[in-house]
Amino acid sequence: MYELHYWPTIQGRGEFVRLILEDAGADYTDVMRGPDAEGREAMLALLEQTGHFAPPLLKDGDRWVSQTPLILDYLGARHGLTPNDEDERREALRLTMLLADFLIEAHDVHHPLAKEFFYEDQRDEALRRAPSFRDTRIPKFYVYFERLLAGDGHFVGGTTCHTEFSLFQIVEGMRYAFPNTMARLEPDYPNVTALRDRIAARPGVAAYLASERRIPFNEHGIFRHYPELDA
Amino acid sequence: MYELHYWPTIQGRGEFVRLILEDAGADYTDVMRGPDAEGREAMLALLEQTGHFAPPLLKDGDRWVSQTPLILDYLGARHGLTPNDEDERREALRLTMLLADFLIEAHDVHHPLAKEFFYEDQRDEALRRAPSFRDTRIPKFYVYFERLLAGDGHFVGGTTCHTEFSLFQIVEGMRYAFPNTMARLEPDYPNVTALRDRIAARPGVAAYLASERRIPFNEHGIFRHYPELDA
Repeated sequence: MYELHYWPTIQGRGEFVRLILEDAGADYTDVMRGPDAEGREAMLALLEQTGHFAPPLLKDGDRWVSQTPLILDYLGARHGLTPNDEDERREALRLTMLLADFLIEAHDVHHPLAKEFFYEDQRDEALRRAPSFRDTRIPKFYVYFERLLAGDGHFVGGTTCHTEFSLFQIVEGMRYAFPNTMARLEPDYPNVTALRDRIAARPGVAAYLASERRIPFNEHGIFRHYPELDA
Repeated sequence: MYELHYWPTIQGRGEFVRLILEDAGADYTDVMRGPDAEGREAMLALLEQTGHFAPPLLKDGDRWVSQTPLILDYLGARHGLTPNDEDERREALRLTMLLADFLIEAHDVHHPLAKEFFYEDQRDEALRRAPSFRDTRIPKFYVYFERLLAGDGHFVGGTTCHTEFSLFQIVEGMRYAFPNTMARLEPDYPNVTALRDRIAARPGVAAYLASERRIPFNEHGIFRHYPELDA
């Protein structure tokens, strides 16, 4: 029985954790979306109490885990999605961390100046940043992952690991935020999109995607669709 | 015998690795600074050949490791700076990853739009971003680490781990880039500055800091001193 503590109205970083929990059929509570949820102040108090910096937080018994890639590594080890071999485990974590780095860029493209400013107050700067993100950064990351998948379609050890769920979520988010750009770019990355389809078809994930548990993408999350930033 | 592969003219992310190697008195070659260094094209070819995304890269025998926090975790495990206990090891890695996140913000404050643009071409945007970084983000991170150190001055297990070297380097870089701001803020964080002094006094680190092996901070690196961004 796990507890996931994350903001209740966005996919955000919590979604990377939810995908693993749902795929595994794990028994978990999405605490801030439950009937007893107490909102933002309770989250800040929880961070203070546990000594963690930011959500998502995973609670497993008496143990608290944070930093999204470390949560994925931790859960994966318990549900067959983290390699046992030390080198392979490090490789999966490395790639999941790299996707987390890309996620920061996918956020900062619409918030180049500060999280505290509204989008509308940094829209001009976002318009200047977006072309470089679309034309340079997206291809740099997608090319890299495309090549790693060129063998058997897996990143590590010939089998599915948590990195594949992270890439699935990146592909989903990028399609939402940059539909024109990704429609243009994706044909160059057939291994990446095939992986996306394979993860989406896993029974636990497919059931989750069709459920109301999955929060729709929206303009409060990390991936936001602002047409002026798309191609 | 390790090989470190990193850009030869900046401290950058490579410095976090150098500090651990120097503290441990490890036998290593800083390849791109050596007599046989081949420059940028050779680095790009190496990334292609090894399947890694970006430097720094550490070579240990036949094994290549990248993503700075994972290099530190890896080296620490071999030189007494990574806890053996699984939960403590995850905690050290979590905090080192959090400092790596802060490092991105310390870079993006002077490059809010794109790595490919010169500073001068995004100076106006940097001027808009800097106050939020100085007044909100720096205190948020420093307060957090200050509190974690409030007990015995260590992050994990009552002893020194790789996270402390990362925080040392952050303090050093922030002093260089934001001398006025940090002179104003640092008195509020005595545990952080005491840790900085303790790491600086370790024999391997002290010898390194006094040597020519340590590249001076400069305006090509991650931490840059632009007076107009300081208070």
